[in-house]
Order: sequence, then C-alpha cells, then structure tokens
Amino acid sequence: MNEAQLEIEKQMELLKELLNQGNITEFREEFLATHTYEQGQFYLGLTKEERQKMYHFLSPNEMGDMFEIIEEDEESVEIYLEEMDLQYAADMLGAMYADNAVDILKQLEKQQIKEYLALMDEESANEIKELLHYKDETAGAIMTTEFVSIVANQTVRSAMAILKSKAPEAETIYYVYVVDTDDTLVGVISLRDLIINEDDALISDLMSERPVFVTVDDDQNDVAKTIRDYDFLAVPVVDDGDHLLGIITVDDIIDVIDDEATSDYSGLAGVDVDETTENPFIAASKRLPWLITLLFLGMSTASLISRYEVMVSDASILAVFISLITGTAGNAGTQSLAVAVRKLATKEDGQTNFGKMILSEIMTGLVTGLVTGVTIFFVVGIWKHNFILGFVIGMAMLCAITVANLAGSLIPILMDRLGFDPAVASGPFITTLSDLTSVLIYFNIAALFMSYFIGTN
Amino acid sequence: MNEAQLEIEKQMELLKELLNQGNITEFREEFLATHTYEQGQFYLGLTKEERQKMYHFLSPNEMGDMFEIIEEDEESVEIYLEEMDLQYAADMLGAMYADNAVDILKQLEKQQIKEYLALMDEESANEIKELLHYKDETAGAIMTTEFVSIVANQTVRSAMAILKSKAPEAETIYYVYVVDTDDTLVGVISLRDLIINEDDALISDLMSERPVFVTVDDDQNDVAKTIRDYDFLAVPVVDDGDHLLGIITVDDIIDVIDDEATSDYSGLAGVDVDETTENPFIAASKRLPWLITLLFLGMSTASLISRYEVMVSDASILAVFISLITGTAGNAGTQSLAVAVRKLATKEDGQTNFGKMILSEIMTGLVTGLVTGVTIFFVVGIWKHNFILGFVIGMAMLCAITVANLAGSLIPILMDRLGFDPAVASGPFITTLSDLTSVLIYFNIAALFMSYFIGTN
Repeated sequence: MNEAQLEIEKQMELLKELLNQGNITEFREEFLATHTYEQGQFYLGLTKEERQKMYHFLSPNEMGDMFEIIEEDEESVEIYLEEMDLQYAADMLGAMYADNAVDILKQLEKQQIKEYLALMDEESANEIKELLHYKDETAGAIMTTEFVSIVANQTVRSAMAILKSKAPEAETIYYVYVVDTDDTLVGVISLRDLIINEDDALISDLMSERPVFVTVDDDQNDVAKTIRDYDFLAVPVVDDGDHLLGIITVDDIIDVIDDEATSDYSGLAGVDVDETTENPFIAASKRLPWLITLLFLGMSTASLISRYEVMVSDASILAVFISLITGTAGNAGTQSLAVAVRKLATKEDGQTNFGKMILSEIMTGLVTGLVTGVTIFFVVGIWKHNFILGFVIGMAMLCAITVANLAGSLIPILMDRLGFDPAVASGPFITTLSDLTSVLIYFNIAALFMSYFIGTN
Repeated sequence: MNEAQLEIEKQMELLKELLNQGNITEFREEFLATHTYEQGQFYLGLTKEERQKMYHFLSPNEMGDMFEIIEEDEESVEIYLEEMDLQYAADMLGAMYADNAVDILKQLEKQQIKEYLALMDEESANEIKELLHYKDETAGAIMTTEFVSIVANQTVRSAMAILKSKAPEAETIYYVYVVDTDDTLVGVISLRDLIINEDDALISDLMSERPVFVTVDDDQNDVAKTIRDYDFLAVPVVDDGDHLLGIITVDDIIDVIDDEATSDYSGLAGVDVDETTENPFIAASKRLPWLITLLFLGMSTASLISRYEVMVSDASILAVFISLITGTAGNAGTQSLAVAVRKLATKEDGQTNFGKMILSEIMTGLVTGLVTGVTIFFVVGIWKHNFILGFVIGMAMLCAITVANLAGSLIPILMDRLGFDPAVASGPFITTLSDLTSVLIYFNIAALFMSYFIGTN
C-alpha cells in the first residue's frame, strides 16, 4: 500500500469515527472535502445503521454528488434507495445529472420510477422522463441534457457570461454548442478558444462550423468510436432534423468501452468475467449454465464418436489423435472467431464486405491448415513409422482447420446480421461445434484407409 | 453511409482535387477547417507523391497538429518521417505535445532520434529527452509536460491571466495545478471553479487541498483505473518527493484501456485480434506460431493417450469420452483463467490475497465438477446402460474440472508474480495443458475398473 492509499485509509477511519460519534459539523466538513469517488467508497463500506445516519447528516444534493460516481450493481442501488425517505431519494435523483439519475432509475420497477418522478421538481422530472424513452445502448440512453448552448451572433464576452451562469448545472462547460433559433446545431466552440480570444470577438467568427455530432439512435459503441477517434471530451447528440438534444461526455464513454471489452472477453471465455464473489457456490452457479450447455453439445460429439467405435476397436491408434485434431481445429476456430468479432466491432457502417471477409478466412484456413497438416504428417509419419497414418491425420487436420476457420468467421457475421452481439457466439461454442465437424471429417477420411490400420499400434 | 459520412467523403474528394491542382490557398483553407482526425484520415489515404505536395503546402506546426491524432503502426510512421525533409520533421515533432512526439520517436532507431533532437528547438528537445527516459507503460512514459501550474497565494483574476497566456501550449487548461516554490504539488483547481468564482477570490481558498495524483513509476493501467474511478479529464504525475512532473490526459487513457482490452482478448484467443490484413498468407503467418506451438503441446497429449492404447483396444468405449472430458475441463479452465486475469487487472495494490483466490477457485472447481460429474453419470449410465462407466466418466470429470480450475487461476497468478502480463497465459495454452491432465486422470480412473469394460460397447 503506498502513501496515497494510506492517507485515504486514515481519512476513511476518521470519517467513520465522526459519523459514529454523531459529530455532524466535523463529519460534514471532512466528508465534503473528500473527493466524490472516495465518498462513494466510504459509503459502500458502511452498515445500514451508519448509512441511515449519513442520510440525516447530508442534504439530498450532497448525497446526489456522491451517487453520480457510484457504479454499483442493481440489487444494492435498489436497497440504498429503499432505505432512504421517499422525498429525500426523489430530491437526490432530481439533483443529479439527468443521465446518471436515469442509469439508476432504469434499475427499478416502473411503479417505483413513477413514485420518484411524482415527488421530484418538475424540471428534473421532465428531463428524466424524456431520457427514459430512448432505447438501451443508444446515444439517447446515455446522453445528458445539461449542456451549454448559445447563439452565434454574440461576442466572447456575452458567451462567457452565459457560461458562468450555466456552469453550476452543466455536466461539461468545456464545449459550448452554437444553435440557431430553432435549436439546430450550427457550430461548436471550446472554452479554450473562448479564453484565448479577445472579449469582443464574435462567436460566429471563432466557432467550428462543421461540428462533429452523433444521432440520438446511434449505437453507443459508435459514439465511443467517435469520441475516441476525435479525442473529444464530449460529443453533441442531435435528432434527424439536426436539432441539438443533449451531449455525451467522455467519462460515460469510458464506461461503454469498458463494458464492451468485458462482454467480448466474457463471450470468448463463456463466463461473466466480472464475477467478484468469493463464495464458490455463487461462482459455480454462474459458470454452470454454460458448462452444462456445452456438456450436452459435447455429448453429440461423443455420440458421433460412438458411431465409429467399431473402427476404433479395429484400429485403436485412431483414438490417439482424436483430441489432437479437435483441439487444433478448435484453436484455429477461436482465432478466426476473435478476429471476426473484432472486425465487426470496429467496422464503419456499410463499409464491410462480408463475402470478402469470409473468403479471406477460408483462404487463411487453407494456408494454416496446409502448414499444420504437412507438419503433423511428418511428425506422425516418423513417430509411428507410418506415413499413411500421417497422411490421414494431416488431411483431417487440413480439412478440420479450414472448416473451423469458416465457422469462426461465418457465425459471428450471421449473428451480427441477425442483430445479435457477435461476441456472444463465444469461444467455447465454436470450439464445441468444431469438435463435432472435426470428428466427422477425421473418421470419414480414416475410413478410406481402414485396411492399412487394422491391427496397427 | 449516413449524411455525416457522405459529407466527410465529399470533403475528402474536394481536398484531393485541390491538392492535385496545386491550389495551395484554397487547399489550406479547406484543410485547416477540417477536424484533425479527418485531416489524418485524408493524409493516410494519399500516395507518396500527394503527401510530398502536402509537406510543401503546410507548415511543420500544422502538420504536427494532425500527427497528434494519427495512430499508426510503426512501419508507416517511420516511412512518413523519412520522406519529409529532416529539418521539417524535427520542427514538426518539436511543435507537437511532448507525449505524442515521444510516442512517435520511440518507434525509431536511436540514431534517428538523436538526429531529430539535434535539429529541434532546445526547449522541445529537452522536454522530449526527459520523457524518453521513462520505462514503457509507466505513468512517466505517457505523461506530457505541457500543463498549467500556479502558486496558491494569488487571485482568480491573476490565475486566469496566467491560464490565458499558457493556453495555446498546454495540452489541457481545464485543470490548473497549484504548486509551492519548489514545485511540490499542493492543490488543484478546475477551470470550472475559476469561472464560477469571483475574480477577487483567493486560489488557496478555492483549491482542493488533497489532489489525487499518480507517481511517475506507476503502471499505466493503475493510472487508467484512477482516471476512470474519479471521472477525471487529467491526473497529475509526481515524483517520490511529490514534485509535479507532468499530467496524463483522458484521451491517452482511452488508448491505454483499449490496448489493454485488445491484448487480454488476443491472449485468450491466441491471436493478435487487431489483424487487419486481408492477405491470407500474412494472416496465416501471424496465426501459425501459436497453432504450431499448441500442436506440439497437443502431441504430448496424443503420446500420453498412445500409452493407454492397449486399454482403448480392449475397451473401445473409452475412446468415445476422451474429447468430452478434455473439452469440458478445458471450458472450465478457460472460465477460471478469464476470471483470474480480470481480478488481477482490477486489483488494488497489495489488497489481493492470492491464497484465498486460489482456494476459492478450487472450491468453485469442486462444486462445478460435482454438478457436471453427477449430470454426466446419469446421462452416460442411462445412454450406455452402464452406471459403472457413468461413474468413471463422472469421477474423471469431477477431478479434471477441479484441476483445470486450479491451473486456470494458479498460472496467471504465477505469471503476475513473476512480472509477466497474466493475460499471456492465454486460453489455448490452458486448454492444451488441461487436456494433458484430463487424459491422465481419465485413464487412471478407468484402469481401476477395466475388468468391467473389456469387450463392452
């Protein structure tokens, strides 16, 4: 633990002491001087009784500042809200930036949402109601309506005055959006440009007239791509008529990028990788659905092998290479899947040629299959002094890898076309599917050469 | 392609036309009104001859603005620099933010770096030399030295004046760092707070006196965690004596998060997932090293099975279940690996109890193994009318899954302890390793019951 962490630990202990002593003045002083993230960490470590005290010590506004930054799972946020006084909770949600309040409200029942909205001040309630309508994972669902907008025909001085008055509520003041009379987005100017330029300069002369924007229905991953590519701190969101509706800030985009990476990674591993429990029963209950599903898929491979049991009984040497062929094809299929998922995630709309992508994967499969097949031909041929066996294994490897590469790219593309997240066509699924085809290929090729194997070992 | 993309396409065509017509005035006007990201996209799409024209049309400064945002692979950046006039390239690098110039220079030979530094203005050269010393992937390596710092005993008005004068060079002006006479970091104040408060207010009264910072040797992933947790736009970097050395901005952190996610994903899949080539030979050459390595690891499994060939020959039914057991244990091991890699990535320094983590994984393995084992006991028992066979398969499954879970958590922890990136202990490696142990477990359990199987099918 380094110095800074020790400092934080000490502060946490002090806060807890003051809270439990009921020393409201000193607690407030220390708590409000603490960064909101650390406030949140402190709050999350409290017992129910201690949290109750905090609700009495802090205003809904102050509580809201802290809740902006808490990223907790559904169950706990619901618990926290329910232990607060109804009006207190409504005031707190109303004081938060609309996008963060919406994130919390979305985790509740419809009836609860209504209750809170009814108790909230009208302006906040309306803002939140508007945002609640947008589909999950779109720009609309993650934007906030608290931004600063001005008109073009004014000076830097008057723009700064507007900025100053709106600064306390706006989620970012570092970009000022320029609109015309019907709220159409016509430009953007950064606070840096406002500060650098003369007070008498006209906004219309300084602003960028080609503001980059996203549309309210855009997928949140496309928004992330825009912010990342352009190194923006925020991006404006417009409707189909170019009217400015809100903005999306970079901190929300970091969460989107994180979630996306986690879900891709989870998909490939067949497990929710953000599993934080240390209780093995809970962990097992989350992993078992995938394992058991794959077990039954694996049973189809077993029953397929079972059909060739007579061949195995006649030439037991065949059994030796089953897992080598299924394993290698599975590895190739996983590589192909991961590349395809990534290409689909970073594709520009309408710029991906799926046919070309699949063809390129088949060709890659043929080349890797050929190299791997020739390698194993020599290895097996020399090891078992049997080049016919080597040829069978090599041929099976070539075909199985090519098919696995095809499946690894085709399945995520199909998922994407059908509107599913291609990352869910996950690693273990491709591996198990490729087991099935590999076994089929292997025994059918082996069958052609059975006369050479009978009695071999 | 949507409206905005069409607009960009049109702009690109116009720029290309103006460039090829040699219309320098109009080209400059249109080009400089284009966002730097789009400038970069335009530049990357040009031929060598067209790029040469651009070097004559634009100043090193203007070129530098564009190069700040270009994220290209080693080879191409080297080509771009080499086709520029030496002095032009040096001036361009000197005009860039030091951290971005360092990113580019790091991809060159030492001799080349020296040449550019010798031609650069002294101030830029010194800044860059300092940054070049820091170890890769540390806070020092990604920070920039272009920040705004002030002393505490002055008013908002004078702070704003300093800000205004430093704004053109600073990478961010949205945080102002407060230092004492020997550059020790004592506070931070946001531009928002400067704007909201009265001109006569004292910085010392407004600033946050507990600035969150990172240390120059911190791993870049820890820096990313700080910026993400606190929702910062930038974080200050200090040395061991708390002296302010630089800042790291959120756009660089997004790149860190992206790279980390990509390398974790690549590790699990056993392939560089950012493979962009459509040439199957190049793609195959990147995938084959892993595949062939795993093929040889797989050969050890095959040769292990080969030792039990007499058993298979006597009871061919055993062959049917090899891939089911290795496959299921491999899936369980991959789950365990992915969870462990993730836990290691998000761990707080010194707060992870490795013993507890491994114990928890073994317990999880036992629980999942038990459930999976009992399931397969009934499935095989009923399918093959042979509950002794079912018992052997079930027992083997239980043991193989437990061992795979242990390996899946132990290996990344060992890698982490030894200072390697645990994500490299990748999925296919664990799968292949677990194949080996699964086969060993399976045939040893089966050997105890051989008398029941001989002649069965």
